[in-house]
Amino acid sequence: MTDFDAESLALHEKVHGKLAVASKVPLATRHDLSLAYTPGVADVCLAIADDPSRARQLTIKGNTVAVVSDGSAILGIGNLGPLAALPVMEGKAILFKEFAGVDAFPICLDTQDTDAIVAAVRAIAPVFGGVNLEDISAPRCFEIESRLSDLGIPVFHDDQHGTAIVVLAALLSALRVTNKDLGACRVVFNGSGASAVGCARLILSAAERAMLPAPADLVMCDSKGIIHLDRTDLNEAKRELANRGNRGKMKGQLADAMRGADVFIGLSQANTVTADMVRSMAKDPVVFAMANPTPEIMPDVALAAGAAVVGSGRSDLPNQINNVLAFPGIFRGALDAGARTISDEMKIEAARALADYVKHPTADHILPDPLDRDVAYVVARAVAAAAKSSGA
Amino acid sequence: MTDFDAESLALHEKVHGKLAVASKVPLATRHDLSLAYTPGVADVCLAIADDPSRARQLTIKGNTVAVVSDGSAILGIGNLGPLAALPVMEGKAILFKEFAGVDAFPICLDTQDTDAIVAAVRAIAPVFGGVNLEDISAPRCFEIESRLSDLGIPVFHDDQHGTAIVVLAALLSALRVTNKDLGACRVVFNGSGASAVGCARLILSAAERAMLPAPADLVMCDSKGIIHLDRTDLNEAKRELANRGNRGKMKGQLADAMRGADVFIGLSQANTVTADMVRSMAKDPVVFAMANPTPEIMPDVALAAGAAVVGSGRSDLPNQINNVLAFPGIFRGALDAGARTISDEMKIEAARALADYVKHPTADHILPDPLDRDVAYVVARAVAAAAKSSGA
Repeated sequence: MTDFDAESLALHEKVHGKLAVASKVPLATRHDLSLAYTPGVADVCLAIADDPSRARQLTIKGNTVAVVSDGSAILGIGNLGPLAALPVMEGKAILFKEFAGVDAFPICLDTQDTDAIVAAVRAIAPVFGGVNLEDISAPRCFEIESRLSDLGIPVFHDDQHGTAIVVLAALLSALRVTNKDLGACRVVFNGSGASAVGCARLILSAAERAMLPAPADLVMCDSKGIIHLDRTDLNEAKRELANRGNRGKMKGQLADAMRGADVFIGLSQANTVTADMVRSMAKDPVVFAMANPTPEIMPDVALAAGAAVVGSGRSDLPNQINNVLAFPGIFRGALDAGARTISDEMKIEAARALADYVKHPTADHILPDPLDRDVAYVVARAVAAAAKSSGA
Repeated sequence: MTDFDAESLALHEKVHGKLAVASKVPLATRHDLSLAYTPGVADVCLAIADDPSRARQLTIKGNTVAVVSDGSAILGIGNLGPLAALPVMEGKAILFKEFAGVDAFPICLDTQDTDAIVAAVRAIAPVFGGVNLEDISAPRCFEIESRLSDLGIPVFHDDQHGTAIVVLAALLSALRVTNKDLGACRVVFNGSGASAVGCARLILSAAERAMLPAPADLVMCDSKGIIHLDRTDLNEAKRELANRGNRGKMKGQLADAMRGADVFIGLSQANTVTADMVRSMAKDPVVFAMANPTPEIMPDVALAAGAAVVGSGRSDLPNQINNVLAFPGIFRGALDAGARTISDEMKIEAARALADYVKHPTADHILPDPLDRDVAYVVARAVAAAAKSSGA
């Protein structure tokens, strides 16, 4: 139980659901009904049948996102199924509205079968201008997102890409604080789930597109240690990253990987990093310990062990690395641009916009305040511009 | 084009969708975020995982209905597909909210395959406390609804049952005006689509349950004439009704069926009934001509030919027989009762409540005003009581 649990439960019991549907048109008179419903609506239907692109102006499609989960990987809790996922998806939906004016609706699917999830999302797509996939366990989340890439509207697995964007922003900002160049940094990940894979892929993609320098090396670890090509237990995503990263052909455990590294990115389990491991890193290392709710190493311990900049997922400590900085602005920008996908260019520009928004980063302040109501719109402008320039 | 078309199109162009999602909780501070989202929400998820029935208190499920269509039978227009159906489903959703405080969300499915529709509705069910099926063509609508009857939440095909409830209410009220007993009436239907089948079934069900007198006879006609058991072209629903109704074993055309009939219920095509056909009916006949937008016979023509009470689907004429009188209250009552289905008892009590709401019916006033904000709650109370007494 966190300190917030009893209060949160009481709030949820009181409001009976955190979101409501509201009419945007008057319904007071017969005339109002005739315009909003029958018979007037018939001509609106015919206009869309004639030209489906008009649905974005004439219906909710242009501003509405589905927040889709199967409840298989809820927060740090695990697989509780779709009904128990609903409070999270409702929360996500109201954050979309609050921070970016996006109307989002929770869709919790009563299946954890990849084919059935893909079919369900395809089936409901007409109403939506985008799909935010959420809390779907790896490696199914990779296949589901990939198979939905031709849907014609952006499909964005936030656990991968939202996290990746905010981590990349935090990294760019932290390297300004420590005055290091990404191209000179060895980056070590602990964790190989959706978020770690998404982060690693985005950093590598930015280098491949020459949008950012390639790190000196990028090494991933899972619970068995360093991920390398001689291992026979790797899934597709791990194999890909062992191939694209780990130029140094490192083997061994996390402690081996961290020795001399400049950046540690933890998206794994509580207490998997020791003070000694931080001490073994290069001078002025960056340590992002984002396991929820207990970090890989407590920030004060990491700082005492020599870390120059520390971030975590916790809202009660400095440098919270929180997806809410990314997803509202990402979808706001994608919807505004009428984008059919969210390209890596859009994600990288979103990360840059977030990092640049902090004019004078310090060790205690590398990211914007999640409550700053301008952030999403700054991100949205960068994303919409990148959508246009990348043809997304 | 109706008179409303240009104005309706302009309204839709202006608002970009008729409904919005709104937060019911504050999101101004970090503390707010911690309660509505992480970390506080985790305990709410666990509470639901422990006891799924708590989802009705802790999430939107208890007050939220999906308005589901495949766009195969949009209003009187036809099969325009899911995107073109969205303006209708949005309209329906805001009527739910406006008239009964039900949060409804449009779900337009990108498939017209029966199996796929059933699978999609099953997949999205966790979020919803009920499903309103809408504008799905016959006979698929019957199978879809039937196969979803075990979903654990009410599934209600409004074109069938909403229409049936309001028609039955209108009939009960009209028979008070003409001082006739339903048990003495011969009832003739023209039309054999979803709404006509739903109406006929509800009248027969009320008689079988001894909730209303059985009509002297109930005869259905389709475009080929009277439906009887010697015909070899009947689908399952028509065959069932030829068996349960048409005790007189009538054959022939609509004009034959209408001769001497007390009640005509048209849910078919424009201009299929002549003044002579009305003249051939019993004394003081009731004529409901509900084809949209042009009735089977214009009300003034029917009245001139001797009809005692005339109703239609038109909002610009007296006695509009409009589903909006039923569906908001039906779902309000079902949600309030936590019903798992909408039983015939609930539908029949809804019809009675609607008819009884009109204390002094006249030929020009057999139904409540659709804009009367009390109607849905009167219906809801009757429905919730019937849900409890029928164990629905």
